[in-house]
Amino acid sequence: MGDLEIRAAVAEDLPAVVAMLADDVLGAQRETPDDLDPYLAALERLTADPNQRLVVAVREGRVVGTLQLTIVPGLSRRGSTRSIVEGVRVHADERGSGLGTRFIEWAIEESRRENCQLVQLTSDNTRTDAHRFYERLGFVASHVGFKLQL
Amino acid sequence: MGDLEIRAAVAEDLPAVVAMLADDVLGAQRETPDDLDPYLAALERLTADPNQRLVVAVREGRVVGTLQLTIVPGLSRRGSTRSIVEGVRVHADERGSGLGTRFIEWAIEESRRENCQLVQLTSDNTRTDAHRFYERLGFVASHVGFKLQL
Repeated sequence: MGDLEIRAAVAEDLPAVVAMLADDVLGAQRETPDDLDPYLAALERLTADPNQRLVVAVREGRVVGTLQLTIVPGLSRRGSTRSIVEGVRVHADERGSGLGTRFIEWAIEESRRENCQLVQLTSDNTRTDAHRFYERLGFVASHVGFKLQL
Repeated sequence: MGDLEIRAAVAEDLPAVVAMLADDVLGAQRETPDDLDPYLAALERLTADPNQRLVVAVREGRVVGTLQLTIVPGLSRRGSTRSIVEGVRVHADERGSGLGTRFIEWAIEESRRENCQLVQLTSDNTRTDAHRFYERLGFVASHVGFKLQL
């Protein structure tokens, strides 16, 4: 396979990115790939925020993955900064290609560059394959993730 | 008990805030209340970031709680914005006073004001009392929280 590039997402990437968000047993129920306007507004907000990195993975000119990294300063742990990984998606054609690993390694490197002391993420209880994947990369399943829909 | 005020944290609150972060079975090992410099630097960074709310609860002029709320724009769920609650601490004297509930209700209200569609947080697997507390407030333990120390 051709070389992989990881770069900031731009508006032209949105159709491919939203298609990946929707191509998922959980995402299918909550995304609207036919209406990109709310995604475009969100991308503008993300791009304007220096603590946000919304990136895509591109292979041979095609968007094959997306990931959001958020840098979160904080007081606890002696004023530590942490990073949060959200919205990791890899195109169905790329599963098993090592892109997931490359992506998380990119997030870890970017977090080090930002002087983060901790990288964290949550994964739906039902995504047991993803849990094994994160544990292989050194993550520890030390927490319970709670969500409240508003 | 006197009235409770929830307001943005300022530098003068730091000794009380860091003492609360350290007064905890997990925090005792990772905080340095005798050296406030890293906390002061972190507070300056938090105060400068419009997506951060580091607040304290004050009763009769005394800081009795702290909480950090982070507003996180995103692409998934039709460009939803979510909020993340971190670093919730209530002074030992105030436990059972309802302050924890007031605090989380404040975070939920602030998240609604910021048009968030989701409030999320993670809680260490060992904090089973906290888990019951969040479930009583309507949070769902739907996720596994992974952390990687850098």
